[in-house]
Amino acid sequence: MPQFLDARDADFEARFRALLGAKREDSPDVDDAVAGIIADVRARGDAALIDLTARFDRLTLTADRLRISTADVDAACAEVGAEDRAALELAAARIRAYHARQMPEDQQWTDEAGATLGWRWTPVAAAGLYVPGGLANYPSSVLMNAIPAKVAGVARLAMVVPSPDGVLNPLVLLAARIAGVDEIYRVGGAQAIAALAYGTETIAPVDKITGPGNAYVAAAKRRVFGKVGIDMIAGPSEILVIADADNDPDWIALDLLSQAEHDESAQSILITTDAAFGRSVADAVDARLQTLERRAIAGASWQDFGAVITVPDLDTAVALSDRIAPEHLELCVADAEALSGRIAHAGAIFIGGWTPEAIGDYIGGPNHVLPTARSARFSSGLSVMDFIKRTTLARMTPAALAAIGPAAARLARSESLEAHGLSVQARLDRLNRG
Amino acid sequence: MPQFLDARDADFEARFRALLGAKREDSPDVDDAVAGIIADVRARGDAALIDLTARFDRLTLTADRLRISTADVDAACAEVGAEDRAALELAAARIRAYHARQMPEDQQWTDEAGATLGWRWTPVAAAGLYVPGGLANYPSSVLMNAIPAKVAGVARLAMVVPSPDGVLNPLVLLAARIAGVDEIYRVGGAQAIAALAYGTETIAPVDKITGPGNAYVAAAKRRVFGKVGIDMIAGPSEILVIADADNDPDWIALDLLSQAEHDESAQSILITTDAAFGRSVADAVDARLQTLERRAIAGASWQDFGAVITVPDLDTAVALSDRIAPEHLELCVADAEALSGRIAHAGAIFIGGWTPEAIGDYIGGPNHVLPTARSARFSSGLSVMDFIKRTTLARMTPAALAAIGPAAARLARSESLEAHGLSVQARLDRLNRG
Repeated sequence: MPQFLDARDADFEARFRALLGAKREDSPDVDDAVAGIIADVRARGDAALIDLTARFDRLTLTADRLRISTADVDAACAEVGAEDRAALELAAARIRAYHARQMPEDQQWTDEAGATLGWRWTPVAAAGLYVPGGLANYPSSVLMNAIPAKVAGVARLAMVVPSPDGVLNPLVLLAARIAGVDEIYRVGGAQAIAALAYGTETIAPVDKITGPGNAYVAAAKRRVFGKVGIDMIAGPSEILVIADADNDPDWIALDLLSQAEHDESAQSILITTDAAFGRSVADAVDARLQTLERRAIAGASWQDFGAVITVPDLDTAVALSDRIAPEHLELCVADAEALSGRIAHAGAIFIGGWTPEAIGDYIGGPNHVLPTARSARFSSGLSVMDFIKRTTLARMTPAALAAIGPAAARLARSESLEAHGLSVQARLDRLNRG
Repeated sequence: MPQFLDARDADFEARFRALLGAKREDSPDVDDAVAGIIADVRARGDAALIDLTARFDRLTLTADRLRISTADVDAACAEVGAEDRAALELAAARIRAYHARQMPEDQQWTDEAGATLGWRWTPVAAAGLYVPGGLANYPSSVLMNAIPAKVAGVARLAMVVPSPDGVLNPLVLLAARIAGVDEIYRVGGAQAIAALAYGTETIAPVDKITGPGNAYVAAAKRRVFGKVGIDMIAGPSEILVIADADNDPDWIALDLLSQAEHDESAQSILITTDAAFGRSVADAVDARLQTLERRAIAGASWQDFGAVITVPDLDTAVALSDRIAPEHLELCVADAEALSGRIAHAGAIFIGGWTPEAIGDYIGGPNHVLPTARSARFSSGLSVMDFIKRTTLARMTPAALAAIGPAAARLARSESLEAHGLSVQARLDRLNRG
């Protein structure tokens, strides 16, 4: 059973705080091991990758087999049936169309002082995409990471994916091909992150690394940050559903379970204005947990971190939602559109009962890489913006410098930065001399 | 003397790589000390801040004196002369006008499947701004950090600034007032970062922390990252000037020195198509170093990390510049505007000989917080975007779900995420039953 809370109860604030503060993830401390792996790859390059892949993935490689050949990708893609291929292609087209709208414009203007100002966006030259192997081997994740990079104009997109015992998921390779990935390497773990960041004989270094991974991958990403850019370090998945009584309890139960089945550390919360409806949803969850394939995982998540919160009104629901700052927020209420406009902090909002969160995981168009663990208070999901950067531009004319230069020289002196001031003053002096 | 390199020399590539790879900063390992300070502030709140401020800043405080009162700010502002005030106000107005153009639009549209998609931008609710005390106490830095936050719509902006021996810079307080900072606390160091991240009795926690600081502050920001958002950890300042012979060597020398005077670890590089001009600039630097107030710092930086590189043509200059990915890039060549369009990686570009980099530090309008240490390959300077975040939106109609839902259900099954698929299928089944 999940927790049942009522916002009108005397102990609500304490229990809600405990829910917010629950430590859901116990990351093993792998930092020393990861430091050793990175040092090894930096020192020995391909040879280290080959040794580590033999050890961790039980796979014997040679340098010329690190990269998955076009022929191997062709063969894998040919294994995929027509319906799966069509589904991936539809998803890719929709994700591409959504992200294409994110591309910002360059700007340049001349202001009243005569200064020409602006900025220009340019893509990262090379990006690396980590794709987990084994259980959490998700073609949808390839699309969600690779397509924004390609829409941004990243010229070289290198993917790394471990193939334990040599096994690769054909759908992952097909997703990479559809998304336009340029190179694929059969390496994983911290060693793959090190190779992307520092390069080896076979793998050229990249400028930015994205994609999910286990504790080793996360620790390696933290360590190479600065040398290259990284995306967020994602925590376990979360969903908050705000629903009134006018919903099918089974639909809401399935939406809650679609996060819970990800991970025992996932968190699914229902906020409802109707306590009886909340009970019905919990009953529907229990019924579905009887037969769900991943019932052990989903059941543990629901039992340990699930919650049903009854609130007196939607104002309270909005206030609690913003304190949770959920990764995924589903609004299943009468005027869901209006309610969505009142939410300040959420990674993604799914509006109305016909928009199950799973649509967003695969095919809606928005990215499914979203801020977890309350970080929607200060960060956004993955987007084209993660693969471009802004160069600011400024151009003074002599007249513009005459207009605003003296203030700059004055501020430089007030900060005791003499050369700053002189670099402006020398030019002003030339103007004054005519 | 700086290094002199020529792109046509046989050993150029090796020497250029050494220049790029030069380790310019030796960060002391203060991480354990910082961990202890953060734990102390979390455990004891204001009492820890008071003890640590007495120890590090030689200042005895009480809880009610942690916050600088409006009367104290008034008194400090009244000390500032009219010309300094006017310069700060002009700078603030120009920075505000530039950053106001960065505010992105919300978007929403309905696609051919009938799905309504889009995103909405919302400000971070509360931000904290770290301002160093002592030597590097820069009012311009207050403007550059605070104004983007306020333009973004951050409702609560709390500033922390140490006041060693009780001394505060009136210009810093005036800059805070002009920029619209809401609260100012006389605390600094790792303890101030801990207070902003976790809160104390007096200082409410914030969601995002920006601003420069010493090794303790940088280590504290790294440690609280995740609990709150942080800006980049900036390294020592850098400038690259690309100049032809048609420039005053003294102007270029002053531009190079205006970075060198920041820090012994700063780096100033000149790339020129004319070796004799390069020598003239180096001579002009030497001449200016005779009298410059900060000649010890600037001289050490120029000697240890400065370089003059001769290239056969501007194509080579562009290629080298992109490998450096400079924080600041000054283009003093005939068609500087056209050259600027060919640069892929730079934090800020200053176009033409009438645009000394120092204009950008104070008054041009663009932000002076910029990516260092080659990180312009993958990141951008501070902007309004650092204080807002995107919530993606999706709304399906029954017809839209009928159109794209089956592909989502299929992909969910291919990833063995049964509940994901069922959450879509249950709704499709309702439609199919009519």
